[in-house]
Amino acid sequence: MLKLPTSLERVINEFGKLPGIGPKSAQRLAFYLLKKDEFDINGLSDAVRALKTDITFCAQCHNMAESDPCSICADTNRDRNIICIVEEPLDALAIDKTGHYKGLFHILGGVLNPMEGIGADKLNIADLQKRIEELGVKELIIATNPTLEGETTAMHIAKFLNGVDVKITRIARGLPMGGDLEYADEITLSRALDGRRDI
Amino acid sequence: MLKLPTSLERVINEFGKLPGIGPKSAQRLAFYLLKKDEFDINGLSDAVRALKTDITFCAQCHNMAESDPCSICADTNRDRNIICIVEEPLDALAIDKTGHYKGLFHILGGVLNPMEGIGADKLNIADLQKRIEELGVKELIIATNPTLEGETTAMHIAKFLNGVDVKITRIARGLPMGGDLEYADEITLSRALDGRRDI
Repeated sequence: MLKLPTSLERVINEFGKLPGIGPKSAQRLAFYLLKKDEFDINGLSDAVRALKTDITFCAQCHNMAESDPCSICADTNRDRNIICIVEEPLDALAIDKTGHYKGLFHILGGVLNPMEGIGADKLNIADLQKRIEELGVKELIIATNPTLEGETTAMHIAKFLNGVDVKITRIARGLPMGGDLEYADEITLSRALDGRRDI
Repeated sequence: MLKLPTSLERVINEFGKLPGIGPKSAQRLAFYLLKKDEFDINGLSDAVRALKTDITFCAQCHNMAESDPCSICADTNRDRNIICIVEEPLDALAIDKTGHYKGLFHILGGVLNPMEGIGADKLNIADLQKRIEELGVKELIIATNPTLEGETTAMHIAKFLNGVDVKITRIARGLPMGGDLEYADEITLSRALDGRRDI
């Protein structure tokens, strides 16, 4: 039997563990790298190894950042009257990229998912009230994904903050149900922000 | 503006250089890794870095291997009367996996492509005649991809070996034109081997 060199098999195996990369794609990637020089190969290797070195989490918004507080929370030009709650850092990045939102963010770190054992205690919800009151936040935009879990999480947060003096809005469902916020184009995202309604 | 940590940007950038991985996929992969522990991250990093360490090329068939001659060329149980010419190592692997072929291989290292400046001198063609005569090869199966370049290369090799005492066959076009040998299933590949005809 023809056998690939062990080091090559190993790279194929490692690539194959990544989400969305099947065995054939993993082979392709490994052979592609094989044709690259040492500089390119070490570039990828070093970048992966150093992935977590300068990453910390902002104690205020829970976003990943290079400093705590993060550049958004420390930026006095941002509108501190409004907080946008999202599931993951990439969601905040997508909303920020629209240039349409100038407030603060709050990263949940996921959504409620009883099937996978993710309850409210696993998300960054508990400190929300304190944050709202300390900053004097006027409006809270809940921008979880328009999925079943995202909607459930939005409802949970609205209930959790019942009695807190803040206007709670939900990002407009300009996004198709079952879609993924992170892949939405900037115009759709901007419209969805504009069309937000009271919960 | 919200900015991702530099180390994360770097990984996204490196993944984005790989073929078939766009900016959004690169982001996804980087965030996926971010949730993994150091062991998994270093596993990928180390595998990539060591990619070329134990890879050499067989001087006879030009396949990548851990030793020279490679395990196929050194295997006395393989049928030395027949050589199968393929474009790339993955093609040889795909054919070998059918279990339907017991002969030797010869890796061209590409196909003729004048548009990209790849002439016959860039491929492993020059030593074919010597190899055929030394081994006393009876049949040469040309299994380049059923693409325009693959067909042209097959014709070129057939012409190049004109006068050499060897039967030259072409893998049957059981494969759809424009397709890619490496992605074919094993039955199609087996049928294509069976249906080979004289050039």
